[in-house]
Amino acid sequence: MPDSGLQQHPAPRSLRERFNAVRLQTEALTEPLSPEDAAVQSMPDASPAKWHLAHTTWFFEALILAAWREGYRPYRSEWHFLFNSYYESLGPRHPRPERGMLTRPGLAEVLDYRHHVDAAFADLLEERLDDPDLAAMTVLGLNHEQQHQELLLTDILDLFSRNPLAPAYRALGPRAVAAGGGNTGWTDHPGGIVAVGHDGPGFAFDNEGPRHEVLLRPFRIANSLVTNGAWQEFIADGGYQRPEYWLSDGWRTAREHGWNAPDRWRQKDGRWFVFSLHGLVPLDPATPVCHVSFYEADAFARWAGKRLPSESEWETIAAGRSTSGQFADDGVFLPLPITDNFGFFGSVWEWTSSAYGPYPGFKTAQGAVGEYNGKFMCNQMVLRGGSCASAAGHVRSTYRNFFYPHQRWQFMGLRLAEGA
Amino acid sequence: MPDSGLQQHPAPRSLRERFNAVRLQTEALTEPLSPEDAAVQSMPDASPAKWHLAHTTWFFEALILAAWREGYRPYRSEWHFLFNSYYESLGPRHPRPERGMLTRPGLAEVLDYRHHVDAAFADLLEERLDDPDLAAMTVLGLNHEQQHQELLLTDILDLFSRNPLAPAYRALGPRAVAAGGGNTGWTDHPGGIVAVGHDGPGFAFDNEGPRHEVLLRPFRIANSLVTNGAWQEFIADGGYQRPEYWLSDGWRTAREHGWNAPDRWRQKDGRWFVFSLHGLVPLDPATPVCHVSFYEADAFARWAGKRLPSESEWETIAAGRSTSGQFADDGVFLPLPITDNFGFFGSVWEWTSSAYGPYPGFKTAQGAVGEYNGKFMCNQMVLRGGSCASAAGHVRSTYRNFFYPHQRWQFMGLRLAEGA
Amino acid sequence: MPDSGLQQHPAPRSLRERFNAVRLQTEALTEPLSPEDAAVQSMPDASPAKWHLAHTTWFFEALILAAWREGYRPYRSEWHFLFNSYYESLGPRHPRPERGMLTRPGLAEVLDYRHHVDAAFADLLEERLDDPDLAAMTVLGLNHEQQHQELLLTDILDLFSRNPLAPAYRALGPRAVAAGGGNTGWTDHPGGIVAVGHDGPGFAFDNEGPRHEVLLRPFRIANSLVTNGAWQEFIADGGYQRPEYWLSDGWRTAREHGWNAPDRWRQKDGRWFVFSLHGLVPLDPATPVCHVSFYEADAFARWAGKRLPSESEWETIAAGRSTSGQFADDGVFLPLPITDNFGFFGSVWEWTSSAYGPYPGFKTAQGAVGEYNGKFMCNQMVLRGGSCASAAGHVRSTYRNFFYPHQRWQFMGLRLAEGA
Amino acid sequence: MPDSGLQQHPAPRSLRERFNAVRLQTEALTEPLSPEDAAVQSMPDASPAKWHLAHTTWFFEALILAAWREGYRPYRSEWHFLFNSYYESLGPRHPRPERGMLTRPGLAEVLDYRHHVDAAFADLLEERLDDPDLAAMTVLGLNHEQQHQELLLTDILDLFSRNPLAPAYRALGPRAVAAGGGNTGWTDHPGGIVAVGHDGPGFAFDNEGPRHEVLLRPFRIANSLVTNGAWQEFIADGGYQRPEYWLSDGWRTAREHGWNAPDRWRQKDGRWFVFSLHGLVPLDPATPVCHVSFYEADAFARWAGKRLPSESEWETIAAGRSTSGQFADDGVFLPLPITDNFGFFGSVWEWTSSAYGPYPGFKTAQGAVGEYNGKFMCNQMVLRGGSCASAAGHVRSTYRNFFYPHQRWQFMGLRLAEGA
Repeated sequence: MPDSGLQQHPAPRSLRERFNAVRLQTEALTEPLSPEDAAVQSMPDASPAKWHLAHTTWFFEALILAAWREGYRPYRSEWHFLFNSYYESLGPRHPRPERGMLTRPGLAEVLDYRHHVDAAFADLLEERLDDPDLAAMTVLGLNHEQQHQELLLTDILDLFSRNPLAPAYRALGPRAVAAGGGNTGWTDHPGGIVAVGHDGPGFAFDNEGPRHEVLLRPFRIANSLVTNGAWQEFIADGGYQRPEYWLSDGWRTAREHGWNAPDRWRQKDGRWFVFSLHGLVPLDPATPVCHVSFYEADAFARWAGKRLPSESEWETIAAGRSTSGQFADDGVFLPLPITDNFGFFGSVWEWTSSAYGPYPGFKTAQGAVGEYNGKFMCNQMVLRGGSCASAAGHVRSTYRNFFYPHQRWQFMGLRLAEGA
Repeated sequence: MPDSGLQQHPAPRSLRERFNAVRLQTEALTEPLSPEDAAVQSMPDASPAKWHLAHTTWFFEALILAAWREGYRPYRSEWHFLFNSYYESLGPRHPRPERGMLTRPGLAEVLDYRHHVDAAFADLLEERLDDPDLAAMTVLGLNHEQQHQELLLTDILDLFSRNPLAPAYRALGPRAVAAGGGNTGWTDHPGGIVAVGHDGPGFAFDNEGPRHEVLLRPFRIANSLVTNGAWQEFIADGGYQRPEYWLSDGWRTAREHGWNAPDRWRQKDGRWFVFSLHGLVPLDPATPVCHVSFYEADAFARWAGKRLPSESEWETIAAGRSTSGQFADDGVFLPLPITDNFGFFGSVWEWTSSAYGPYPGFKTAQGAVGEYNGKFMCNQMVLRGGSCASAAGHVRSTYRNFFYPHQRWQFMGLRLAEGA
Repeated sequence: MPDSGLQQHPAPRSLRERFNAVRLQTEALTEPLSPEDAAVQSMPDASPAKWHLAHTTWFFEALILAAWREGYRPYRSEWHFLFNSYYESLGPRHPRPERGMLTRPGLAEVLDYRHHVDAAFADLLEERLDDPDLAAMTVLGLNHEQQHQELLLTDILDLFSRNPLAPAYRALGPRAVAAGGGNTGWTDHPGGIVAVGHDGPGFAFDNEGPRHEVLLRPFRIANSLVTNGAWQEFIADGGYQRPEYWLSDGWRTAREHGWNAPDRWRQKDGRWFVFSLHGLVPLDPATPVCHVSFYEADAFARWAGKRLPSESEWETIAAGRSTSGQFADDGVFLPLPITDNFGFFGSVWEWTSSAYGPYPGFKTAQGAVGEYNGKFMCNQMVLRGGSCASAAGHVRSTYRNFFYPHQRWQFMGLRLAEGA
Repeated sequence: MPDSGLQQHPAPRSLRERFNAVRLQTEALTEPLSPEDAAVQSMPDASPAKWHLAHTTWFFEALILAAWREGYRPYRSEWHFLFNSYYESLGPRHPRPERGMLTRPGLAEVLDYRHHVDAAFADLLEERLDDPDLAAMTVLGLNHEQQHQELLLTDILDLFSRNPLAPAYRALGPRAVAAGGGNTGWTDHPGGIVAVGHDGPGFAFDNEGPRHEVLLRPFRIANSLVTNGAWQEFIADGGYQRPEYWLSDGWRTAREHGWNAPDRWRQKDGRWFVFSLHGLVPLDPATPVCHVSFYEADAFARWAGKRLPSESEWETIAAGRSTSGQFADDGVFLPLPITDNFGFFGSVWEWTSSAYGPYPGFKTAQGAVGEYNGKFMCNQMVLRGGSCASAAGHVRSTYRNFFYPHQRWQFMGLRLAEGA
């Protein structure tokens, strides 16, 4: 059962337990990394792993400890400038493309920083057990950190993809791949007025609400994601060379970058391989295609005579469906390659046809938290679902992920839809 | 039979008359231009006036004469490459940023080209008087040419704005400005299911349909456009220096370009002037603000505690309203500065909060015409209304104009809305 | 008294006659141009023909009339900003890459400007017949204008090369090509101390002096320029694909721009053509290669087992040689293609191995004139000789032309040398 | 006494001893660095410290072991691609700007690589004790490595300068600064024919020869370097705002980058500090100015009414002079800040007025070694002297260093000269 918040757990853990679990999980993700791996920034879109470790800690320090603890003294006041990501209201920041220049503080120092803040935070939670605002902000901080857990992995994958030695983040273990046997076919929906958006008791980001009604026309949506095998057919049919399938911006982008396959695909001696967190592995035609941009997803859909679903359509269907079974627990997820698709969603993020914007009645919060999602509501497209690298609690039907239509370095794929 | 706004005219003219009127109007617009003015390209977004003259002619030649006239020989076959704008299906094209390099053919040659095609077209229309497909394509070609009439003016304005001598396209005549006295206040709407999109007998572009139902929440919308005077208050209140009002992409764009006022605004000795088609004129606080990007419009709305209307909201209200009174006739419009606002809309294009995308059920046509609007449905925002430089027939409530959120060189302004 | 090559003419003309001849010659060069041709700027390195017409006039107005004529009122004071090229001491300037934006003033207005200044200048010369400083500055102004005559032609050639219609500046007349029959072989020099640099009674630019001694080692230098035919051998031998012949910067530049032949060379159906001021003409293997960068010239020389001559070596040999015979008169030269090589030099500028720097004891003059040559003495390489587009008076053995090593749009070729 | 090779040492050490000393010295330089510090690349001009460690090792492996040891198997054959710097003849290479992406191999692995090659090389030297070609190549390899020792330090300094925390490479010890007391004044030279270039028994790079005669005019040269204090006067006099002192390319570069002081200078509360390998230290007016570009050096000289010396002038005077006394031994140098100037040269590299080019008769060697210096002989300016970070053996009067005129990240300063 999908689960995204405190209340929904069969055995709800204490906030303290959750805090510990999430914080430890982030550090666990960096275990396969050398100090060098953790320091380098592969491109402006990505951040060093060490920066993710520090920024998520800064979030607890700058947005919670500094507000709740009178006289709280930052661990290192000069780091505030370094680890603020994009909060204009919290002052000037180190420029994003320069994050990879910060060889100091080193990985060990950043881990010390984490432990210092963890201890201070544990004391705070202990003392203010009943403060609902503190609990809410803490849950936000934990969800924020879980988002960065996924980014940490996608950013490491991008970094390793730049290395001609093709290093693996983690060796590939035995896989039990079922490839979602019964999930073929389509689900039909008669249209009409439906409600979308978050409105339950569990945690959700501000951009998931307010819950509101939308008017759908009859449509149907595929039960499974587009696979690598289908994408090979698109390539073989000249999909990357035929402008009639492409948006104008997409065609120009594809020409400029010389795209002729998804990101991470590499051809050797006529065979396709995929560079993954497990290194270079043979392409599996049965698993969902991954690392495609919105432009490619849209072109594929047109080539297939279909279209991408809108986010409302997607959510309406996904609301009652199961997620991928790989998430045993929201504290212990496995960044597997894209190898299974047991549930309806949760293997790769799914591009929708919806531009990212505010829901009707959306209001940004006061203060720094107000910058969390709202100010990005332009130029980006909504993705739904969640990926193999998402925290289990994030794989819910109302979650709105968003990226620019040319971006490919996240675990991104697609599902088809069509008018009824 | 498709047609462009015939019903709006007391005495509907024949297609032949319309053809002549529109074609002559384009040439009339270039009368104030020297051959040099008509040849230069001020930026990749803009095209030389001469190119507009030639491209609109190429449209009739390549998309109609070549298809309807067996054995039609192009006026100059080597020009096909030069004057195709973006139709991938019609072969390779001269790169857009290079259009200003084409000093040959000269202005006189291009006018000869126009007259040659006009004559051939007149013959065709004469012979195939009853061909509804030809009539439909001709009307499309005329509407296409009218779009380029507006672009010709905006592109000349941009070119002249780059000249330190600040030349005027046309001297400023006496103006009767009423500034839309009674148009203040708000119009309320109760929400509910409404139908939007074109479905009448008149001409419309493919992206204006299919007509379909949308679900609106209660809202209200301003009766008049935001004025220069209101924008001065925004500036005075630090609007361009306060990130809390801005989208993240907008803030970065404004920093990069050093924006601190609308495009074309210039300060001299503490007073504001506007560079217009009439040269540099003092800023009039009562007229609608113009040459603002979506980013600025959105920031202004947030500063004002309001928001931009969605395109559905806008259309629902505008459907029953009058347009600006300056258009005596759709063949004779006056590219005035932004000086009057008699009707509800038609002075400047109005940014909406809606990302440009396909209406439900939208299908692109087969062939080159299919590239007309559909392939641009990403990354752009919808503008509604029409401007002082639009052909009268284009100022209708269903028309969907679209530009990138950073663009400012068109006649672009805004109107506010808010939830009821 | 400084003067430009008076001694070279059988019947020395008066300064007034020279002024008229040079000024008329510039206008004559623009006769084949339409107003559009004269307005457009093909790249930042080049300027519009109209700008050359205006800037050379501005030189006489701003540097002479304004200084010699008390109370002189500029023809249009607001043009001063537009037509200053690079004289920092004369105030701010219109940015060079924006010169093509100046559709106003138009060609006719600029010609009016020329005639106005010509008249004022004629009066000044009449009144101050005996002022040696005025004479010296006038001669400098005329030589300056003659430099711009050549640039006007190279810039038009570059502009026309960007037009897919490949227009010709001037139709190709009958040519009497002798290709310098007896000019093969080498000239030997024993080395030793020689004097180089200008020191005679005729005009020279400041960078041609002071005359000074240099120590040469024994060397020899080719009697003729490298030909198109020899360059074809270089291409056929993989010259553009073999890094061992190239300077590191040159190799990178050639890769970035995809160079595989001189600029203006175009291959059609396996045959080479050259785009010239006469349009596209078949490549003539016997004529000097033209439109090669320093990087290419240097690589060719290394491929040939030779080297480029130093400017001192070149000057020492050229001092006693004849120039190309095509220049009947320094007021009437013909911008022929590169078709003859009667004399030792004068067909194309010849790259030397010498970086452009000051001669020992070189001092920049006070004031604006001091900016003429001195401030460019870095990063550029010296070319010697003169081209088919140079004024005859400029084709002298001490003239130092200079361009960046990647530039190719001038009439540039090379001659080989080697240690004795 | 300056010393640049085996023979000049009072007690010449064996090649084996030299090999060990130089190799250990490189590793010793990386001791203050964390793995993160050693991995990151601050800009395309710089390389990660780890890359320097690996590349210098690759040099011994690819250019010597592979040639002298039949059947030698590279330590990791796939690293050949990664650690080739610019040798086209040795195959394709990892792009220079991507060197910072190589988090793998890690620092420890690279050190293992060094030790493996060191052992193999020790065996080779042992066996081929009498092979003069091997000895010559080994000496080249060691001098190459010493060049990279200096680059390693300058690149680390650049990296640390990008960190807002301003880390120090090494804490500042007690300094005995004498500031070259008696070194003021000028040295005169009468001019005439002098010989320059290397021709002794000691090691020199190929670009230091052949020794040849040049003709000098009378000149004089300053006994000491331009100091920080003098540079402050230049700044105070508007040196960075007055175009009349600047080369055109220099002025543009200074504007683009907003230069108003040497690189690494930082102003806090009205006082100047310098960011150095010891962190941020107060500016010492008595020590030589450092981190200035050629453009700045040239502008300073013009402001001072002087000029830069040519490389021949410099060498002629420096040949008989002592170097800075800080180099106790060529295996143990101290990367001090610029604090002393005991000898005539050796504190900072000194820009000359000479463009970098081949000496008369210079021939590039066959094979990869031929690419060592020759292919860079364009667009760069010669620096002479040596710096506080140079190996002692490199601080000799014939050494020709070269950098682009805009570069500032090396330890670069200047000395003035003038015509006699």
